[in-house]
Amino acid sequence: MIRARIHITLRPSILDPQGKAVAHAIGTMGVAGVSGVRMGKYIEITFDHTDPASARAATDQICRKLLANPVMEDYRFELENEA
Amino acid sequence: MIRARIHITLRPSILDPQGKAVAHAIGTMGVAGVSGVRMGKYIEITFDHTDPASARAATDQICRKLLANPVMEDYRFELENEA
Repeated sequence: MIRARIHITLRPSILDPQGKAVAHAIGTMGVAGVSGVRMGKYIEITFDHTDPASARAATDQICRKLLANPVMEDYRFELENEA
Repeated sequence: MIRARIHITLRPSILDPQGKAVAHAIGTMGVAGVSGVRMGKYIEITFDHTDPASARAATDQICRKLLANPVMEDYRFELENEA
């Protein structure tokens, strides 16, 4: 079993209104010292086989075609063997 | 400057309909071998100081009170010094 851990983040040049809203809410909570918040997605995909090359190719295809918006978002992932 | 990297995931006992929808979409793409998908959130918070103890306490408070739903979600985070 292989698990892919995927991070999808907004490109640095893209404004993040949700992050701005969270930063504002942090300020109203009375927590000081926060200079920025960026929101992203975290996705775990479990494969029922243990072939890393095939899992890597599948995860890359899934990220490109389904999970990430290539105009606005970057993705990265790591694979991990699970017992 | 300290950056907190936060992962918020659904507790294992909680159903994830968004993950089920993504798993179904992966199937219709023709990618085989995927046995499960879990959706989570990834958040980066940047602090304007370099005091790890204070950043750790602030991040924990932000996760508990603002970002995670403690009934349904778990959170974890790491701190990292940024140049």
